[in-house]
Amino acid sequence: MRIISEKTSNGVVERVFTINDLPGVLWTPAAESIDQPLVLFAHGGGQHALAPKVVARTHQYVTTCGFAVAALDAPGHGDRPKSEADQHFVAGLRSRMAAGEPVGDHVARYNAELSARAVPEWRLLLDTLESVNAVHGRIGFWGVSLGTAIGVPLLAVEPRITAAVLGLAGNAGLAAIAPRVSVPVRFLLQWDDELVPRDAGLALFDALGSPEKTLHANPGGHAQVPAVEMESSARFLARHLAGAKPSSLSAGSG
Amino acid sequence: MRIISEKTSNGVVERVFTINDLPGVLWTPAAESIDQPLVLFAHGGGQHALAPKVVARTHQYVTTCGFAVAALDAPGHGDRPKSEADQHFVAGLRSRMAAGEPVGDHVARYNAELSARAVPEWRLLLDTLESVNAVHGRIGFWGVSLGTAIGVPLLAVEPRITAAVLGLAGNAGLAAIAPRVSVPVRFLLQWDDELVPRDAGLALFDALGSPEKTLHANPGGHAQVPAVEMESSARFLARHLAGAKPSSLSAGSG
Repeated sequence: MRIISEKTSNGVVERVFTINDLPGVLWTPAAESIDQPLVLFAHGGGQHALAPKVVARTHQYVTTCGFAVAALDAPGHGDRPKSEADQHFVAGLRSRMAAGEPVGDHVARYNAELSARAVPEWRLLLDTLESVNAVHGRIGFWGVSLGTAIGVPLLAVEPRITAAVLGLAGNAGLAAIAPRVSVPVRFLLQWDDELVPRDAGLALFDALGSPEKTLHANPGGHAQVPAVEMESSARFLARHLAGAKPSSLSAGSG
Repeated sequence: MRIISEKTSNGVVERVFTINDLPGVLWTPAAESIDQPLVLFAHGGGQHALAPKVVARTHQYVTTCGFAVAALDAPGHGDRPKSEADQHFVAGLRSRMAAGEPVGDHVARYNAELSARAVPEWRLLLDTLESVNAVHGRIGFWGVSLGTAIGVPLLAVEPRITAAVLGLAGNAGLAAIAPRVSVPVRFLLQWDDELVPRDAGLALFDALGSPEKTLHANPGGHAQVPAVEMESSARFLARHLAGAKPSSLSAGSG
């Protein structure tokens, strides 16, 4: 793990890092705490770890909840090199949008491909943060849209994550993996989502194996999640990530 | 409005009253405030205004949110006389349950009938509370299951109510009225509700005319709404009932 830059503002320490060629950012409270939860923040499609919306939200998590937050650029996003598949996706997206065609299936296929690349990266990040003693408390996950395409398969294989905010996604591939998710989940759904058919979102929520899961649905399109849901999902994570990290999991992981 | 009894405990004043033959309860903070919201609390089927669960929740609203709360016994509930229709419903419910038959349609038909009787009673209550200067701030509504069967048609005709918690209900009759509801709504849905088919609950949420509405769905049966939803719905009401009452509505109502 190589620290590229470090700065502190408004009580938040921001460290831009790379792990091998993998770029990411770690935000921590200037005054760290013993049981400080860590939230893995997976950005949406077209964003990156230092996009203004991501930074605004992660700063809020650090300052109002006392979380540490770690984000990675998704494959093909931010300054990461774009593969042939990445370029093919963008070209396909543009041509479909120009033709006024639906893009949901196209996005879902691409996100599944990104997810296969991203899941091992998030596990490597966790291994690395543990190896440098940067994990003090419980670990949560925040990721909607592309973040959920990555989050569902990540949660299915990663026992160190104990609660997750997901949503704005749904397709048969994700629904097939979802029964293996068992941690408490807050699931955001936009009732008039132009990218995700309502029934596909409801089916993904239904398929989640978690005994404790809550669907929050609001009117509006894919990008119109009400601000109050952000505050509410922060409370959800704070509730589930309070206290010391489960020793049985942290001992066996790595 | 005749006060039958009045007592104060833990900072809550509880007044049991009748309006003509209509029995109800008004809970207020011992220290009332100028903009104090009023929440109309419509109990579920088989309950009544002084049932222990109702009293526990309304006390919480008074002590933690500073609301005044008013509840009425629904027709045929509590000590109110049971009509032939009421007796017919209970007998039909028992025989269906003994035969292991579904009861959802039977309950929905009866609730629609109760609702036709109850809506004018709630409006009379509001008129009466205004006439004795007991309404200081904005007015909200809390009612799930039977409370929603009453709440949807009440909200459709009653402009004095400015926010509502609804849920645990859904049928074609309610969905037909729901487009006339326009205030912010929190809608609770139990994913495995044995009385309300999931699609019927989703369809009622969909049909609500409110531009601002949020569905909260959780796993479990009709009576298994998680405690955290109660705290969350209190926050929802507190957010929407803060501030002075809209003068345009209070002036024209009655």
